[in-house]
Amino acid sequence: MLENIFSNTRDKAPYVHNITNYVTVNDCANIILACGASPIMADDIAEVAEITSICNALVINIGTLNERTIPAMLAAGKKANELKIPVILDPVGVGASKLRTETALHLMKEVNFSVIRGNASEIKTLYLGNGITKGVDVNDADKITEYNSAQAITMAQEFHKHTGAVIAITGEIDIVAGYDKFYLIRNGHPMMSRITGTGCMLTAVIGALCAANPDRILEATVAGVCAMGICGELAYSKVTSQGQGTASFRIYLLDAMSNMDDDMVMTRKNLETLM
Amino acid sequence: MLENIFSNTRDKAPYVHNITNYVTVNDCANIILACGASPIMADDIAEVAEITSICNALVINIGTLNERTIPAMLAAGKKANELKIPVILDPVGVGASKLRTETALHLMKEVNFSVIRGNASEIKTLYLGNGITKGVDVNDADKITEYNSAQAITMAQEFHKHTGAVIAITGEIDIVAGYDKFYLIRNGHPMMSRITGTGCMLTAVIGALCAANPDRILEATVAGVCAMGICGELAYSKVTSQGQGTASFRIYLLDAMSNMDDDMVMTRKNLETLM
Amino acid sequence: MLENIFSNTRDKAPYVHNITNYVTVNDCANIILACGASPIMADDIAEVAEITSICNALVINIGTLNERTIPAMLAAGKKANELKIPVILDPVGVGASKLRTETALHLMKEVNFSVIRGNASEIKTLYLGNGITKGVDVNDADKITEYNSAQAITMAQEFHKHTGAVIAITGEIDIVAGYDKFYLIRNGHPMMSRITGTGCMLTAVIGALCAANPDRILEATVAGVCAMGICGELAYSKVTSQGQGTASFRIYLLDAMSNMDDDMVMTRKNLETLM
Repeated sequence: MLENIFSNTRDKAPYVHNITNYVTVNDCANIILACGASPIMADDIAEVAEITSICNALVINIGTLNERTIPAMLAAGKKANELKIPVILDPVGVGASKLRTETALHLMKEVNFSVIRGNASEIKTLYLGNGITKGVDVNDADKITEYNSAQAITMAQEFHKHTGAVIAITGEIDIVAGYDKFYLIRNGHPMMSRITGTGCMLTAVIGALCAANPDRILEATVAGVCAMGICGELAYSKVTSQGQGTASFRIYLLDAMSNMDDDMVMTRKNLETLM
Repeated sequence: MLENIFSNTRDKAPYVHNITNYVTVNDCANIILACGASPIMADDIAEVAEITSICNALVINIGTLNERTIPAMLAAGKKANELKIPVILDPVGVGASKLRTETALHLMKEVNFSVIRGNASEIKTLYLGNGITKGVDVNDADKITEYNSAQAITMAQEFHKHTGAVIAITGEIDIVAGYDKFYLIRNGHPMMSRITGTGCMLTAVIGALCAANPDRILEATVAGVCAMGICGELAYSKVTSQGQGTASFRIYLLDAMSNMDDDMVMTRKNLETLM
Repeated sequence: MLENIFSNTRDKAPYVHNITNYVTVNDCANIILACGASPIMADDIAEVAEITSICNALVINIGTLNERTIPAMLAAGKKANELKIPVILDPVGVGASKLRTETALHLMKEVNFSVIRGNASEIKTLYLGNGITKGVDVNDADKITEYNSAQAITMAQEFHKHTGAVIAITGEIDIVAGYDKFYLIRNGHPMMSRITGTGCMLTAVIGALCAANPDRILEATVAGVCAMGICGELAYSKVTSQGQGTASFRIYLLDAMSNMDDDMVMTRKNLETLM
């Protein structure tokens, strides 16, 4: 099911409009390029609709949302819907403040998202329509493990039905749900949580892959989640062998994405399909 | 005196709210994670007090201050004081413009800071209540050397008395003053001034260590200054041995912080205690 | 003609004021430091003129322009003209939105630029006073190759006459035009387009070199273009030999700039002078 997701992206070199945070924006731009797509960052209300119009997908990330960028997110999202290009939401830190929760819920009301990716606490907050998260990290009680994944799968599936979006809940185990199918993905490495931006970067990768594969949103999302996890595994193996730390890990992770292809995804994916 | 500063940070994994600049924000987030703490960047006035409320420390860095973020800095600072969590100020480039000087002085009037860290020109500007600095670097005339450190120590001690904050003046020689004690630290390497953000990163590290050790602000600050200098030394030794440049140095410096522990601080610190 | 451009920069350590985008700002700051100059990023209208006043050059990059920063760009540009220090324009993505095109044209009307650097589509947009570019990348039809460079050279020369600015059009082949001279530069490597910010970084390098060599704007620009390309070549040779990817490439490129000197530029430049 994941055939050609990456090769399509490298062949088409699609454009991805990002309205994102200023913390991880450089990593997001670089990982989109590493996938073979081309990033455009633009967040002024006077140009976002026009920029979306020349792009193949839109990624909205609320990591450092503010009064100036929130209306821009809405305007770009509506334009993307009008043009029927994929829109991906990363509700960073939703639940940590009223502003984040209300903004994300408002965006979900006004914009049809193709994919929503967050950690378990963020998705739970959106699913329940409220909630309290502790900053940008998942709450311990919400973490998905082998023992509680059934509950998270149900939430993902229900949330998918409510929103129509493919739902990706990422953490130690990743869940992707959409169109009566759901997947568990066990790629990745704990060191990924020791650098900033692995979540944001994954969302950017999903944006790139969806831009090139707009009729295969579910597959593109699954491929993106697998690929990111594989990059984490590859990066960790390099760090271990050279006795380095988290900054080298980050470089190796981006390196791995720049060399990623469909074969690597197929060979190394740790994917369980549930129906 | 520096026992367990790092192990407490790694054990507690505290949250650090940062209102900081967009130049070095990614490095600040990554070095906070490298210390074992968790960074949250949020700067909209509509959410900063709420974000501060779920955190264990607040770092205010005026590197790219603007009319939108200055009120947010004030609001977050006041909330942090109300909650009695540590607040750290990095007065980047103070003295280079009226906006910076007035903002920093206003912040100091309205918010009680636990730690203020800057270079000698920045601290001198705040100490005198005015002054002219040349951009974000220390003026040559203000540089602390073995020959003029006595004067800088006096300034640090006086400034501590006026503000109640632990004062860290960093440069070739670092001075930390607080509670009738002062320290000279001779760790570090000149290559640290050839990359952007070593000052900002140090302030972020101090924020992380203070978040986990709120009753040991002076010790946490000293440990942070020593640790950052040690990381610079370790990074330089790797660069030298491989014939690389400043970008590799930056990676190795962050790597070193991700592997830092109390033993390393105790063993390699070059710390002189003056009473 | 390129003698001492780098040594002057390392000797004088000039200050470069940057009003730039939040995507590549960290890379811009680090590469300015790598050249031996000192970056200052400040974009609030309340301080930009004052910051420009303490600097030796100003770089304006419209990559993530917004309603708050556009007036700041104008104010800083006018102050730089008044002080007769070099002003460099990077019209990122001009043609991709009315906001970008109108802003860049307005800036060119109100500010005398010393250097304008962009890709072929961006320069064409400014030259024609309008145009459509596809995001931040060059349009395929505009790419400069061995077969169509004559046309691009004419455009560069004409645009120089209209504006008085040295014009640098960068891509597979780079063109620099100014003062009845023009140059073709064939340094560089295609991997440079697989990371974000090589264009922005080159503009920042030109800013640093012009800051130290204000009477040799044309030579400083040519030296910057050659040096950036050489860094790309050196970085690629390291990546190839170690089987790494684009993130390592970016580190090696910055490393190479931190070790760049006039000898290296003279020895490795692939420069054709046309009169």
